[in-house]
Amino acid sequence: MRIKRVLLVGGTHGNELIGINLVKKYEQYPELFTRSSFETLTLLGNPSAIDNCVRYIDKDLNRCFNFQALDNEITSSFYETQRAREISDQFGQSGRTPVDLIIDQHSTTSNVGLMLMVDSLDPFILNLSAYLTSIIPTLKIYHSAISGRNKDSLRSIAKYGISIEVGPLSHGTLHADLLHKTETFVQAALDYVEKYNHNTISSSTTFLTLYEYVDSIDYPRNKWGEIHAMIHSQIQFKDFEVLNPGDPIFLTFDGKTVVYQGVSDAYPVFINEAAYYEKGIAVCLARKQKLEIGKNNK
Amino acid sequence: MRIKRVLLVGGTHGNELIGINLVKKYEQYPELFTRSSFETLTLLGNPSAIDNCVRYIDKDLNRCFNFQALDNEITSSFYETQRAREISDQFGQSGRTPVDLIIDQHSTTSNVGLMLMVDSLDPFILNLSAYLTSIIPTLKIYHSAISGRNKDSLRSIAKYGISIEVGPLSHGTLHADLLHKTETFVQAALDYVEKYNHNTISSSTTFLTLYEYVDSIDYPRNKWGEIHAMIHSQIQFKDFEVLNPGDPIFLTFDGKTVVYQGVSDAYPVFINEAAYYEKGIAVCLARKQKLEIGKNNK
Repeated sequence: MRIKRVLLVGGTHGNELIGINLVKKYEQYPELFTRSSFETLTLLGNPSAIDNCVRYIDKDLNRCFNFQALDNEITSSFYETQRAREISDQFGQSGRTPVDLIIDQHSTTSNVGLMLMVDSLDPFILNLSAYLTSIIPTLKIYHSAISGRNKDSLRSIAKYGISIEVGPLSHGTLHADLLHKTETFVQAALDYVEKYNHNTISSSTTFLTLYEYVDSIDYPRNKWGEIHAMIHSQIQFKDFEVLNPGDPIFLTFDGKTVVYQGVSDAYPVFINEAAYYEKGIAVCLARKQKLEIGKNNK
Repeated sequence: MRIKRVLLVGGTHGNELIGINLVKKYEQYPELFTRSSFETLTLLGNPSAIDNCVRYIDKDLNRCFNFQALDNEITSSFYETQRAREISDQFGQSGRTPVDLIIDQHSTTSNVGLMLMVDSLDPFILNLSAYLTSIIPTLKIYHSAISGRNKDSLRSIAKYGISIEVGPLSHGTLHADLLHKTETFVQAALDYVEKYNHNTISSSTTFLTLYEYVDSIDYPRNKWGEIHAMIHSQIQFKDFEVLNPGDPIFLTFDGKTVVYQGVSDAYPVFINEAAYYEKGIAVCLARKQKLEIGKNNK
């Protein structure tokens, strides 16, 4: 099945300026982002949040696309709930201009470097991941389906959905190198789709390192729900570095170290992401896997 | 004139979590922050902004204390305008419990390290600056009066007002090392006040390096006011490093370098501060001065 239409998204979170400004650039220079075998569309996800330079107005838009769950919620009047329906009616699989692939551009205050988020191990996604890794060797691949993003994220409305995350970057700011890396990533992904459509993807066997979300840990809090510890200096900015049971993870305001109490090692991701404080997430934990990608994935 | 009362402030900006959590700590462990010769009070500047983890609700509280200017403004119903009056009525020089010194704790997305902001060259402030530099040799001292902070900031309502800025730190996050540095700074400042009151400040002559605000530069913008360039990688995180005429300062989204067009060298401060995008400030420029501090300042 050929990919007919790709959607490049920025501003799903209104204070992540790299994606927003890249979408504007794609719209200004469409020749840079079109390929012969498919159509490339663009979308600014959350215009009101962008205008206010905030993540969202009423609710995180990237958690609003599980419409079955939402039907029973009191959030139906929320700006983002309505915006999610608009986007789905336009670009979803039953929409007016359904897209086959969504590339959603994000940034994070965590030190993830350049990270590809996938929600499935479909052969198309695995081969795309392998191709992108061959172009960008430092790319980390994070499988987030279990966290729920395969059901409620903006990218979930297309047949194939991926996100790019770059960091560390303060929300509400730009960073020239990280913007350039995001653009390089998007170009490579579009090149992959072109090769896929022309059936010119290399068929050699390769190995892919995947970090699969398994759980998240909240900050220690007091009885009023207030945080009373911070990410420990020893793991600050150490995303994707192994965390062993007994390793320091938090430091309380009065100077006590709290250690990781898991039963086996884990790989922390999204350490100290600003937007996750309110979600009760200090760090996500992943397990590291090595997958063989070969002809059987074609 | 003895210092009778010191006010430790956090949360003047509601998404700067270090100051907020330190004020809570000071309130929980008052014995750590009291001294024999004066009273130490605490204040969370902007409670509504803190609850919402945003810089401000209607207007930046740290620009609301120039009451003469405000009387003619339509902003009189703003939350922060009213909050500023409350704070001034309590702690201002004609307030119910007037304070002699305000120490306002801030953080920034810029790489300022540990920075003391002063608004005057009063001998008390200069000697405090010299003392703090002797305790914290990496401390940078930034004289911001010309930017207007001597008139409109929260700290301006006391006889003496200083701020501490630490960075780089994403707003809405904590950082264990930067929190610890802020606390060390506050302890040293309180020690200074104690010595000042007991007249035991060393009288040796010393030199103080001061960065004095002279101007600010906005991002290049298009006719709709939208940013079309970013801080250039060559100056990102290079606060307090000399910027010469002709040095790269911005990079446009289509890859063109914009150079600094000043007539003489300058020292950039607050490079790429998130909260300053909306204020039209990409970077503040300071001139570097060396001051001799001696007996004549006593």
